[in-house]
Formats: sequence, structure tokens, C-alpha cells
Amino acid sequence: MTTPAVKMVVAYVTAPSKEVAMTVARTTVTEALAACANVIPEVTSVYKWQGKIEEDQEHVVILKTVESKVEELSARVRSLHPAETPCFFTLAIDKITPDFGGWIVDSTNSSTAKH
Amino acid sequence: MTTPAVKMVVAYVTAPSKEVAMTVARTTVTEALAACANVIPEVTSVYKWQGKIEEDQEHVVILKTVESKVEELSARVRSLHPAETPCFFTLAIDKITPDFGGWIVDSTNSSTAKH
Amino acid sequence: MTTPAVKMVVAYVTAPSKEVAMTVARTTVTEALAACANVIPEVTSVYKWQGKIEEDQEHVVILKTVESKVEELSARVRSLHPAETPCFFTLAIDKITPDFGGWIVDSTNSSTAKH
Repeated sequence: MTTPAVKMVVAYVTAPSKEVAMTVARTTVTEALAACANVIPEVTSVYKWQGKIEEDQEHVVILKTVESKVEELSARVRSLHPAETPCFFTLAIDKITPDFGGWIVDSTNSSTAKH
Repeated sequence: MTTPAVKMVVAYVTAPSKEVAMTVARTTVTEALAACANVIPEVTSVYKWQGKIEEDQEHVVILKTVESKVEELSARVRSLHPAETPCFFTLAIDKITPDFGGWIVDSTNSSTAKH
Repeated sequence: MTTPAVKMVVAYVTAPSKEVAMTVARTTVTEALAACANVIPEVTSVYKWQGKIEEDQEHVVILKTVESKVEELSARVRSLHPAETPCFFTLAIDKITPDFGGWIVDSTNSSTAKH
């Protein structure tokens, strides 16, 4: 296990439907903004909106990427997301296996990622 | 993307039933201890209890909040949870979109959160 | 809530089937490499492999442990996983309830964990 050679993060996004979740996952991976995505289905979200407790069915999208792509990634997710204030934050990866870490770097390196 | 103006965290809780999970989610959001909750269903938990491997169906509750509410949040979760030693830990949020971060601060600010 | 007495982490693994996910969970808990595991089912993974976007059904395994076991844990997961480059990374636990933290330490302490 190693501390990542370059800072890597997990981005956490919630989406109001499977379609939006899969569009975020497919687009960001295709454009090498994220190395991979895990879409967790059937999540119940609870939040307060204008003083009232709301409950929605959502899907959580976990995106693994390098820190240097986070700005672009968050802008792209916003462009694909219907909400005015989409949930988007990152958690820093502490340690990672060298081969998986290398794969994340390659997959988000626009020049290598296309081939 | 910005480093949160005030420290923000994700709290991770496991609940033995959907009822307990939703009670934790609804109560902590209503009381402005968390801005929002995502309840992940149908999780299989594996752990050792008194030397024996146990497997239970559980629900994971992800709570997004400010660090300053964590002490109160963990005490409230414990008061709603049937287990003697509930799973409760936090992960520090590294970066967040300014609008979603602002919403978390507003939603956990007891004075503003009620209106 | 306290900062863990010893560094604790959450390990994040994806598995191609429920069988692999449960084998990873059961084996690592039995061998005191992790205190407990949460297996999240029916996750859709999106990634690029040799230039093509792939979508698979996977299961996410969340393993809670002490930092000192991570090297051994990652090697054991690799030995149980069919993929050439399994997804394995850790996130540092920021704060934890003293009793749950104590339980993680006891459960991953090979001498105490057996009894």
C-alpha cells in the first residue's frame, strides 16, 4: 500500500434518478474526468427544504479520480445535473494499492486514457 | 470547489432496520444536527461477536454535517439506536462546491434551519 | 467523540459477485484483519478498459480496521479477488465514538480477537 503519488480523491454525488446517475458516471469516465464510478441504487435521502422535511429516492455516485481533475469534474457534473445545488464533495484517499493507483492516474490522463 | 469554510464531515452509521435508519435520518435532519441523510438499504454486515462470526441485514446512514455538531449528533444517534455499541465515525470532507457547502452550513445552523 | 487512539481507516473494495464480496468480508473478519464489513449490493460500476466503456454489476465492501493491519488486509483481499487490479484504497477515520473505536481495536487485535 502506498500514499498516492499524486493526490487522489473520491467524489460523492447524489442523483435524483438512475438515468442522471448513469449519465454522470458514463460521461465523466468517457471524458477521463474520473477513472471509474460506482452507482449505488435505491438510496433514500432525507433533507429539509424551505422548512419542510423531504424524502426522495436517489442514487449515490462514487467517482474515483485525481485531485487535479476535481474542478473540471464538479463543473461537468453540474452541467449534467437537474438540481440547482447538487450534492458534490470529495474525500481524500489515504492509502491505495500501487497498481490501482497507477490505473487511476492512467485513466484520468487525457492523453493515455483515450487509447 | 473550495476547502470548506468550516470543517465539514460525513458521519457513517449502521442501523439494524429501515425503521431505525429512517428515525435517525429524520430526527437528526429535523433537529438540524445533520443537513441531509442518505440511507443505503439491504447491506449485509459481517462481524465477530463473542468469538462467533455474525451476519446481519443492516442499513447504512450517511449524514452530512459541520464538525461543530458532531458531538451532539453522535449523542442523538446513540439515543435513537438499540445497539449497545452503535457504529459511528466521521470522515473529513476535503473539498466541496461552495453552494452545497453553504447549504450544509445553513441547514445545521439551528437559528436559520427552522425557517 | 474522539480522535482515534490509533489511526483507523475504512477500506473500500469492489467485488464482481456477492460470493467474492462475502468471501472477502468473512475471511478478513475471521482473521482479525478487519473488525467488520458492510457489503453494499447491486452497484453498477462504469469504467474504461482498453479504450471501451464497460458496465458491470458489482458489490462494494466497506471494511473498518486499524491502519497497522492495512498492508496485510490488502494482500489478503488480493489473494481472494479474481481481478488482476482489484479496487482497494483507504479513507482515514477522523473521529469515532470511544466504545466503537475500542471495539475496532479489540476486534483486530489477533490475541484478543480469537476469544
